[in-house]
Amino acid sequence: MHHTEIITLLQTEPSIHEINVKGWVRSFRSNRFIALNDGSTIKNLQCVVDFEKVDEEILKKITTGAAVSVTGVLVESQGQGQSVEVQVSEIEILGEANPEDVKLTILSPKRHTLEKLREQAHLRVRTNTFGAVMRIRSKLAFAVHEYFQKNGFYYMHAPIITGSDAEGAGEMFRVSSLDPKNPPLDEKGNVNYKEDFFEKETNLTVSGQLEAETYAMGLGKVYTFGPTFRAENSNTSRHLAEFWMIEPEIAFCDLAGNMDLAEDFIKYIINYALNHCADDLEFLENRLLEEEKSKPQAERSDMVLRDKLKFIIDNNFKRVSYTEAIDILKRSKPNQKKKFKYIIEEWGADLQSEHERFLVEKHFKCPVILFDYPAKIKAFYMRLNEDGKTVRAMDVLFPGIGEIVGGSQREERYDVLKQKITEMGIDEKELWWYLELRKFGTAVHSGFGLGFERMVQFVTGMGNIRDVIPYPRTPGNAEF
Amino acid sequence: MHHTEIITLLQTEPSIHEINVKGWVRSFRSNRFIALNDGSTIKNLQCVVDFEKVDEEILKKITTGAAVSVTGVLVESQGQGQSVEVQVSEIEILGEANPEDVKLTILSPKRHTLEKLREQAHLRVRTNTFGAVMRIRSKLAFAVHEYFQKNGFYYMHAPIITGSDAEGAGEMFRVSSLDPKNPPLDEKGNVNYKEDFFEKETNLTVSGQLEAETYAMGLGKVYTFGPTFRAENSNTSRHLAEFWMIEPEIAFCDLAGNMDLAEDFIKYIINYALNHCADDLEFLENRLLEEEKSKPQAERSDMVLRDKLKFIIDNNFKRVSYTEAIDILKRSKPNQKKKFKYIIEEWGADLQSEHERFLVEKHFKCPVILFDYPAKIKAFYMRLNEDGKTVRAMDVLFPGIGEIVGGSQREERYDVLKQKITEMGIDEKELWWYLELRKFGTAVHSGFGLGFERMVQFVTGMGNIRDVIPYPRTPGNAEF
Repeated sequence: MHHTEIITLLQTEPSIHEINVKGWVRSFRSNRFIALNDGSTIKNLQCVVDFEKVDEEILKKITTGAAVSVTGVLVESQGQGQSVEVQVSEIEILGEANPEDVKLTILSPKRHTLEKLREQAHLRVRTNTFGAVMRIRSKLAFAVHEYFQKNGFYYMHAPIITGSDAEGAGEMFRVSSLDPKNPPLDEKGNVNYKEDFFEKETNLTVSGQLEAETYAMGLGKVYTFGPTFRAENSNTSRHLAEFWMIEPEIAFCDLAGNMDLAEDFIKYIINYALNHCADDLEFLENRLLEEEKSKPQAERSDMVLRDKLKFIIDNNFKRVSYTEAIDILKRSKPNQKKKFKYIIEEWGADLQSEHERFLVEKHFKCPVILFDYPAKIKAFYMRLNEDGKTVRAMDVLFPGIGEIVGGSQREERYDVLKQKITEMGIDEKELWWYLELRKFGTAVHSGFGLGFERMVQFVTGMGNIRDVIPYPRTPGNAEF
Repeated sequence: MHHTEIITLLQTEPSIHEINVKGWVRSFRSNRFIALNDGSTIKNLQCVVDFEKVDEEILKKITTGAAVSVTGVLVESQGQGQSVEVQVSEIEILGEANPEDVKLTILSPKRHTLEKLREQAHLRVRTNTFGAVMRIRSKLAFAVHEYFQKNGFYYMHAPIITGSDAEGAGEMFRVSSLDPKNPPLDEKGNVNYKEDFFEKETNLTVSGQLEAETYAMGLGKVYTFGPTFRAENSNTSRHLAEFWMIEPEIAFCDLAGNMDLAEDFIKYIINYALNHCADDLEFLENRLLEEEKSKPQAERSDMVLRDKLKFIIDNNFKRVSYTEAIDILKRSKPNQKKKFKYIIEEWGADLQSEHERFLVEKHFKCPVILFDYPAKIKAFYMRLNEDGKTVRAMDVLFPGIGEIVGGSQREERYDVLKQKITEMGIDEKELWWYLELRKFGTAVHSGFGLGFERMVQFVTGMGNIRDVIPYPRTPGNAEF
């Protein structure tokens, strides 16, 4: 008999017809009540066994973690917390789970630390927390695609292995097939990458933006959604060496349009999660409340998880120029009283996470878009303003997270861009193709990048970025 | 004034209200007719300029490749081939394109070879052919997500950098941050990867399957869609060193269910392309017809592009066991007459592309799913059949392409899998987590892999795989 998923059964009316369901035993109470989960939803299906009719040997094997196939009829539930349950007529053990072995794993029914769960990342998706996080991650990813496709954007796969290291957004991972111990050398004694697979030095991409620009200048509106990499030795709860990034790029769009897009996009995907992940969000909301009980009042969140998400949707993001922000920060209490680690002394200072969070959480109390940053602290490709000292950059700052989106209008003027490239000491030859976009029908265009895991963290309320991606890659960690 | 995209304008009724449109000039005839394209559709919008009212200096700059902003009213078209056109009241040059410079590029209005287009991959998306291919690629990618999400699958991001090289599906690219010239060595004189970023040797993934299995055994039904890599020195029209792969994995699903899924999935995404990419497919169909005119009759396609796609949707895929296929091939004319490069002598032979194509194109004349292959020619993780010599593998074979999907039911029995791993000489310690799936609630499960670019090739009719991905990576090529 074809099995039916639990997410479907829980919305099915009781009936005299037999159904079959397959899943993993979460618990087995009183030799009678199986809490069965198949991953389709966080909710378990209660399956009621008549132990007098089931072979003793089989009963013994109905243990936490075991995979079973259950046949029976769906009846109105006698217990609380579910509308239907299964009256079991037949049960088959598909795969056992020896209780002694289970005890040594995170499958055992007790509290495990998130650190412990990470060590058994191949099993953690079977827990309520990670099942919920990963279902939400999947829905959010789909919302990203749906948003852009509905709005006429084309999905573009930017290259992962790249021969250009022009962006200089941090240290890169080298990709090579050369003999690692005795690489061939050229006449100068340097590694001879001409003998490597790609006949040149190659790295893992840090951003698909420059390539996305080439596509925006042909298809109009494009977005990327792919893995990007940073070989930075940052062992924090906010950094991964491998993470997924979303980068829309739009021709004929200025910085104001770019801010509109970022705000609309973020609200869309958060709203999508609220509408499609109600059960998982409810679970994570309660999990957070539980977790916060052990914290002092001052460190607890103002809002519970779903209220925090609704707040984002219901409020306009406050748009503030960098110059205005510096004024606010200079006059702020933590600056005056030297509570900031980095005191804001003057215009031109790079903003730290503490400053961003002050603006968002204390001053404006809503998401903030900062724009028109000093050229000196931003990348070469950003559009220089007429004042000659600021660029059309924008960062979206979120409560609890800080920067969640970074973007800009791009420098579309050939001469200005060329000069910037020279000033920054980048080899112009590396960027011949990027410069050519400004030679053949250049136009105002803009885009931004959103680190997908940061967004998943925000929506799920998970404190550590390693807990929102299946197999996190960080310094010293590339297990599985 | 806010601009409107051409795809929208072409479906808009004429009106007295002014509209604004921005795009790139494809041609400018008689100092009067601009063919404008903005990438939103393959179709150009005709913009009619009254040259007596436009400044001479501006007229001169309306050249192929230039970006312009056009304001005017939408009127019923006088010419053929379009329903509406724009009567221009105002035109602004956004970005010039010097005709002398354009002549040196693929933007110049003449036929360019696909090889030439590849050298200017940053501009090729502005041509009709590549615009069409890349819009279709985008729609197909979305269809993949839509199909799986509608059917209750969760999207899973498998890791790109991997510490396990267990699959052994070919040569891998090494990922490292060590000094490439003088890597640190251990006491035995080998490269000391303990000092590398991940403190172990790491490579780019060749498949997300094993990790997807861990997620299927928790979430039930999952799929991956991400980049995968092969460091094989294959300079063919069918191989890329970096390509995108789709890998669904389903718990409680056997080989028959796996075949059902593959067939249903393929039909869905092809149908999606037919419904959402009509104009682009029409263009590519005509392009192919044009291309085939120079070929001898025997080498031309039986069907035009869209008929070929409809044929896939309208016909059942023929399911044939490997054993049956070998019988057919042994008795076939090309085998008897030794026309095959590799003559099929006996059961156990690995099938070559020529054999697959014979079965699909000559014998069955429809897509074929071959199943139950000899264990010896397939991977270690495939479910051994009761005969002890075949495994529950399946390949979907397509006309003109050969294998487009490869999948299997996975070996779910701990002992059998463990023995297979030992026999294949794989270090068991590398796969401790994969083996553990069989220890805690194991169950029948299956999955397959589909190379996305092969599918895009099939749908667009492009002969070379380098022409269906924005920036192809092949031996010696990692430009842009």
